[in-house]
Parts: sequence; C-alpha cells; structure tokens
Amino acid sequence: MKRIGKQSFEFENRPGIIGHAAVGGRKEAQGPLGADFDQTFDDTTLDVSSWEKAEAQLQKESLALALESAGCKASDIDFVFAGDLLNQCISSTFGLREYHIPFLGQYGACSTMAQTLLMAGIFVDCGAARRAAAVTSSHFCSAERQFRTPLEYGAQRTPTAQWTATASGCAIVGQTGPVRICRGLAGKIMDLGVKDPANMGAAMAPAAADSVFQFLEDTGAKPQDFDGIFTGDLGAVGSGLFLEALRYNGLDLSGVHQDCGLLLFDRERQDVHAGGSGCGCSASVLCGHLLRRMERGELNRILFCATGALMSTTSQQQGESIPGVCHILDLA
Amino acid sequence: MKRIGKQSFEFENRPGIIGHAAVGGRKEAQGPLGADFDQTFDDTTLDVSSWEKAEAQLQKESLALALESAGCKASDIDFVFAGDLLNQCISSTFGLREYHIPFLGQYGACSTMAQTLLMAGIFVDCGAARRAAAVTSSHFCSAERQFRTPLEYGAQRTPTAQWTATASGCAIVGQTGPVRICRGLAGKIMDLGVKDPANMGAAMAPAAADSVFQFLEDTGAKPQDFDGIFTGDLGAVGSGLFLEALRYNGLDLSGVHQDCGLLLFDRERQDVHAGGSGCGCSASVLCGHLLRRMERGELNRILFCATGALMSTTSQQQGESIPGVCHILDLA
Repeated sequence: MKRIGKQSFEFENRPGIIGHAAVGGRKEAQGPLGADFDQTFDDTTLDVSSWEKAEAQLQKESLALALESAGCKASDIDFVFAGDLLNQCISSTFGLREYHIPFLGQYGACSTMAQTLLMAGIFVDCGAARRAAAVTSSHFCSAERQFRTPLEYGAQRTPTAQWTATASGCAIVGQTGPVRICRGLAGKIMDLGVKDPANMGAAMAPAAADSVFQFLEDTGAKPQDFDGIFTGDLGAVGSGLFLEALRYNGLDLSGVHQDCGLLLFDRERQDVHAGGSGCGCSASVLCGHLLRRMERGELNRILFCATGALMSTTSQQQGESIPGVCHILDLA
Repeated sequence: MKRIGKQSFEFENRPGIIGHAAVGGRKEAQGPLGADFDQTFDDTTLDVSSWEKAEAQLQKESLALALESAGCKASDIDFVFAGDLLNQCISSTFGLREYHIPFLGQYGACSTMAQTLLMAGIFVDCGAARRAAAVTSSHFCSAERQFRTPLEYGAQRTPTAQWTATASGCAIVGQTGPVRICRGLAGKIMDLGVKDPANMGAAMAPAAADSVFQFLEDTGAKPQDFDGIFTGDLGAVGSGLFLEALRYNGLDLSGVHQDCGLLLFDRERQDVHAGGSGCGCSASVLCGHLLRRMERGELNRILFCATGALMSTTSQQQGESIPGVCHILDLA
C-alpha cells in the first residue's frame, strides 16, 4: 500500500475482484436492474420466520453465489468483512456464522459495501489474505421496523424519504481478476447539522462531496477520467446537493455522476420517493450491475463512492444531528 | 504482512504502540486497577445529558489522552478504527466526529479492542497508514437500558451475569514503540447454542478456546512462551469453560491465563457477580494496566485475546443462540 496526498492510498498489487453476486427482493427484481441480479426472491420473508432472519439469509445467499462465481469454497477465504444496518449487525453475524470464515464486522451504515471492499482489498494487497470477501445487506421490512415505524402502521412517507433496498451484494477479492482495485479513500465523519431522518440524502451529501473532492485532489484525477462516478444512496435530494457542493468547489460532475439509489428503482413507476437506500442498495448495484458492465467492457474505470448515515433511533430521540461518511474505491 | 499456518499472520514491520490511554467511571476507579486509569469520572453522566452521550464522551476523552501520550495531533492520525456495543455504534460515531480523522467503524462487540488494534496494526504495517488509532468503549448504564432493563426497574441479576464496564481504551499505533505488535489472528464465529444473555462468558468461551488453540497451533508457540494470556471478558464462568475446553485439547493454560473481566473489578468487594464485561473492559485493562506493565518491563510478551458476543435484543427475542468471536494479538 502507498499513500497518495492527504487521505488517499494506492493498492500497489491491484487486487482483483474474482467473484461477485447480488440478490434482491421482488421490488428490486421489478426495477430497471432486475436482470442483473443473480437471484431474486418473490417472497421477501425468504421462507424464514422473521424479516431479520430473512435479511441474514440474503447475506448467506449472496456469499454462496459469489463463492460459486469465484470458483472458491468458504475455506479458501481468509477473511470475511461484513456489516449491515441492524442493531449489532445481526444480519452479518447470523447470516455468515455457518461459513466458519474469520470474521471482521464492519460498521459504516449504507457505506458498508465500499468499506468492506476497501478492507478486503487492503488485506489482499498486503498479503494478510490470499482471498477475502466483502458482503453487506439491507431489508426494507427489518429497517422500517427498527428505524421508523412498524409496517402495519402504514405511516405516510415524506417526499425526501428513501426506500431501503431488500438486497445483498458480495464481492470476493483475490490476487487478480477482470476488475482491479486501484486506489481508495476512507472518509471522515461529516456532520452539517441535518436532523431529518426522512432526508438521509441531505445528511450524507456533505460527506460524499468531501470524499470525492479530496480523492480527486489527492490523486490528480479529473471527473472525465472515469466512465462513471457512482455515489451510494444519495437519492434525488442528496444527489442534487452533492453536485451543487462540488460545483461550488469548482468541480463539475454532471454527465459523469450517477447514484445507485436512483439506478436501482424507477422512481416514476415504483413509488420510492427520493430513491433507494440501505447497505444493500449500492452493494447490489455494484455487485450485480456495475461489475457486470465492467466485465463486458462497457465501463472501464469507475469511482464507487458509498455513503452512510451514522445515526441511530436513540441519537435521533436525543435530538442529535445525522453524521455522514463516504468511502471511495477507484476500480478499473 | 505474512500469513502463518491456517489462520494467523505476522506483522513483518512490527508496528509499535506509541501512545495509549484508559478512562473509566467511579466503580472502575475503585477497583484493583484504579491507579492505572489515565482519568476517571466520579459522575458517570460526565456532565452531559444522557448515558449514551456520556459514553461517546468517554471515547472522545480516551482518544485525546492517547494522542497526548503519543505526542500527536488528530491530524497526524491517518485512520481511526472504533466501535462499541450501542446500536449503530453511536458512541464511536458521535464521540469521534469532531476529530475529522478518516473513520472506519468496527463491530466486534466486546472483542472490539483487539479488532481495532489488529486493523490499526495491519494498516501501519503495510504502509496504508503512518499512524492509526484504535478505540472502543462501553458504559454500564447505556448497556443496561439497551440490552437488559431500565436501571430504574432494579432488576435482579443472576450469578452468571457480568457487569458492563464504564470505560474506554485507546491505543495509537505507529512505526515503532516500546510495545510491538508481532502476530495476530482474526477469529471465526463460534456458536455452541448458548441462549442465556445473562451468561455471556459461556457463550464466548468456545470462540476464545478455538482462537487460542488455532493461534498456538499456527505459530508453534507454547503457553509458557507468554508472561500472560489475557482473555477479554469471559468472567469467572467463561474462564472456567475456556480452560476446560483447552485442557480437553491437550493445552494447560493454568498459571498463565488471566481474564480482563476478573482483573478490572474485585468480585468479593464490588458485587459484579461473574466479573466485568463490555468493550471498555478489555480495552481499559489493555490500554491502562497491561501496556503500562509491559512498558515497565514487568511483562515482556503477552497474548491479548478479546472476546465478543455477537447478539442483539432482537436476535434474543427471536429465540436465537449467542454467537461468539475472539481476536488475538501477540504483543512484545
């Protein structure tokens, strides 16, 4: 590993993504990226007895499919980096316990796919791992009942609210592969005082802008060097603020920026208000859609910039604002 | 980094611990290790408006003191690895947001001190960081109300229950230092079906036994090579099971094993039942007591084996068992 500039670093051996998979629920299957999922489930309970257990099952399935795609067994994987939105990350711990892979739980809220992939990349790059897995998930129903209100209440959603994806994504990192992990950045916590939990996009946009600005500054890269700069789940509101903040700092990303939360669902047709969100949103867009496009040569170099809102129901109830974070991977 | 055996790895550059600090509450100050805390707080609200905010304050204070002990500013630290027991790790995110250090949240329950220190060590060893911080915390009152019952209920505790420490520990890792990080192991999730949340020691003991057995097997080290093998917070019940499981596998650790949960409090005098627990327990014992003893030359080589119980109130309510994990550092 080599540091570049203030906050970025380079993967000297450019580890490769040797396998990946995305799984999702019915709404995700019906969205614009439905065909890019490796597996989708019509009944989002996945035939288990709770939504939390269903979410754990999503991680179990996506890791199984990613292993298959990499031609690996669980025992070939030296570490699994995983995390999710549920209290104490139980989708990860319960979903992955049967694999018996050394487990390092990560907490980055919806930025978890970028965080776990950074970790897997660093461990492989420096020789601590031969192969490592990065996995995360979210589930609309488990997230709603934990963070908001029980689904049965039928609470009204505001226009700025986003829709938590029922999905999981997993990537397996090895020495080489069709897509290489070239550079990265771990973000700082940014908190500009947004307190509305129904407007996560606004809470996370400053972190995304800060991380992208710093990455381009550190590496000397220009927005047009990338076939796409993909934020995690800023949605319609957050994406607007993100572009505005960067424009204010002299960077124009229009034309090259897209948001995973806006790609996963069709806002006109699917009633998701400001767009998709949740750890599984950017994870499934990356591990289903984007990596496929890269492997087909439709995208050659992308920035994957997953964003997370680091709050809890307790911090909200105690009147706190919502800190955000954004981690970045430069993939080619 | 170099892999050793099945699951262990060696830090080729042996990064050093260049600064460390432990802070705690009144009960911790009154315990056998009271003199080894850098700072203790008589009022465990720390003059803020909630116990959760007080816990965040503990992390803020321990990082500040550790930076001071390392002679560093926050801007000298390339990454902070932190996590805690609260939902969505809010002690870490809110406690550390003002530092503006790139943040990578870790979730390992009470194993977090070992996990964050492993991460900091690996990042420094491989050149991704020049200096990195590892920090975690727990707070008796925030843990009780989140995981068990509101303190005001005055619920009766069973004899196997442990007492969550009100404490935080922080270590700063750099290129060299009086104590070096030599080897490590990341544990697998082990679940032998224990379901009693008032007996975490029993739930975590299998993970501790598995990790210690594997580490000794991988590295060829013998228990007597260490001046102490310190488990995190198995307490009286878990320590007994841990020693028994290893004895059954031909390893005798009696005489060399100690448990941070049994060191932090005086069980006779302090009414903590089976001993101390919580992320802050092993963190403050390491960053207050053990590192001081190493610096004074009283301990030359230790294994630090922090253990975590990866459950949540939801997983308990849904009838799940309690998975455990144990991560290891070989410090000299």
